[in-house]
Amino acid sequence: MTRRIPDFDDVRAAAERIAPHANRTPVLTSRAVDARAGARVFFKCENMQRAGAFKFRGACNAVLSLDDAQARNGVATHSSGNHAAALALAARIRGIPAHIVMPSTAPAVKRAAVETYGGLVVECEPTLAAREEGLAGVVARTGAHVVHPYDDARIIAGQGTAALELLAAVPDLDLVLAPIGGGGLVCGTAITVAAIRPDARVVAVEPAAADDAYRSFHSGRIVPSEDPRTVCDGLRTSLGELTFEVLRTRVSDVVTVEEDAIVAAMRFVWERMKIVIEPSSAVPVAAVLDGLVAGNRIGVVLSGGNVDLGALPFER
Amino acid sequence: MTRRIPDFDDVRAAAERIAPHANRTPVLTSRAVDARAGARVFFKCENMQRAGAFKFRGACNAVLSLDDAQARNGVATHSSGNHAAALALAARIRGIPAHIVMPSTAPAVKRAAVETYGGLVVECEPTLAAREEGLAGVVARTGAHVVHPYDDARIIAGQGTAALELLAAVPDLDLVLAPIGGGGLVCGTAITVAAIRPDARVVAVEPAAADDAYRSFHSGRIVPSEDPRTVCDGLRTSLGELTFEVLRTRVSDVVTVEEDAIVAAMRFVWERMKIVIEPSSAVPVAAVLDGLVAGNRIGVVLSGGNVDLGALPFER
Repeated sequence: MTRRIPDFDDVRAAAERIAPHANRTPVLTSRAVDARAGARVFFKCENMQRAGAFKFRGACNAVLSLDDAQARNGVATHSSGNHAAALALAARIRGIPAHIVMPSTAPAVKRAAVETYGGLVVECEPTLAAREEGLAGVVARTGAHVVHPYDDARIIAGQGTAALELLAAVPDLDLVLAPIGGGGLVCGTAITVAAIRPDARVVAVEPAAADDAYRSFHSGRIVPSEDPRTVCDGLRTSLGELTFEVLRTRVSDVVTVEEDAIVAAMRFVWERMKIVIEPSSAVPVAAVLDGLVAGNRIGVVLSGGNVDLGALPFER
Repeated sequence: MTRRIPDFDDVRAAAERIAPHANRTPVLTSRAVDARAGARVFFKCENMQRAGAFKFRGACNAVLSLDDAQARNGVATHSSGNHAAALALAARIRGIPAHIVMPSTAPAVKRAAVETYGGLVVECEPTLAAREEGLAGVVARTGAHVVHPYDDARIIAGQGTAALELLAAVPDLDLVLAPIGGGGLVCGTAITVAAIRPDARVVAVEPAAADDAYRSFHSGRIVPSEDPRTVCDGLRTSLGELTFEVLRTRVSDVVTVEEDAIVAAMRFVWERMKIVIEPSSAVPVAAVLDGLVAGNRIGVVLSGGNVDLGALPFER
């Protein structure tokens, strides 16, 4: 039953399932950000999650949800990187193999992370079609159980546990922001916020250069991105059927930010908050710093911190 | 009474004095570090302190300790950077000018920080003699009150408040590490640890390329560094009389680490802990990662996070 929309009970069950393995990440604040934003902003630091991104929550929940028959031949997925590393680590924790179909354009640091955790990488061209074809080949060869990076109830429920911890630390938020790529994070967040803090708004923030969620949300039908060019390597994927349905019904709005605003927000966070975030994490920060969203007490899920320190987007 | 050795009452008074202004910085842990170190390691994140370094604690304590007559003409200092920014911010909080004598080699990001906080920069050659001469000139011209970066009871007491918070969060440490430049941080730390957790050892860690504290500690007399060449721009200064006396009597040991180990430790922290630290902060981390110190529950004061993102020491 992975092709269904999870509910808050699924999020709570996921939280219990992953608790022995996942980091309860810190919630940090910044005087500099608050002054710029004119609001109190609370950052849920999933860049400090295991494998460096929120993705471990969903992957761990999915892998630990498998029965022994499902787990026997391991797991497989295609991913631009963070889900890949997360699934490899979750599989290692369970003691099963992880087969990862990965685009040739994935950052070296993300591929290296998969291999560090014992994941088996199968390289493919950087298109959705090539990724799906590569994955089908792996499954035919190994019998591995596919764990989709976002369009899967177990994944969405797992991602919702970050907001659960955020609201436990700061109950009275009136706005929660998350970046959107495939939509797993923002959908899990929306399910959790709707259950615990129904008056708060959840807004998805997306790079304007990969705005399929923006166009899908505002047109009422899925409009996939074709070969999007954004610095946010984690947000080049397009919505799935489940995530579109949750987005459409439980998320208040989708807003977009430009590439230069993303890099500037990333630099602001590195310089002023002294934390390492990847470009995808900077997307909702850009919306806050540039005043694109209105709130007094704003929660921001910083999605990940996996960057190649030898290839930063900052000018020298 | 600044030319005396502070005691733990001074640290407690400093903590109360600076509490409305300083950040109570987080204590973070890392599975990756613990696995490498074979110990539990607790990082006191002074990189997340205001103005980006522990220096704000001492500077704020010193500026708030002045009576009105002392404060009337502002404050002045010479500093390689972090004390400068910290003093400028503390002076702004008090509403008095700060005159900062700064070596021409100080990183651009540190000079910019001083100016952001309204500090008045006077540039000098990067030698101790030139710095002292520049400072004497400023004082003659303005009548400003000098706040030495480390050889001052108010500064040492203020720096000791970081360890106070660390031990409040993690009482049962058996070893506490801090980097040593002029010695204010490690001396304040030693005074606090001796009072609260007398069985714990305090060890100062120093770049081998700027090892005046190592040589002074082991020879029993102050041996200043002459023009030291280390990536740690915060640790090029030499001990003062007060800090040498505290070091000699209250610090268990001084150990040194090489430049390549410092850069490797810095990279490890950025990549695995996802926090931005400057090279000086990486000095005690290198000692932990390379097994140069023995402890089961180790506290490490991460001294600061002010780096120029356009001039990082990592290979591309």
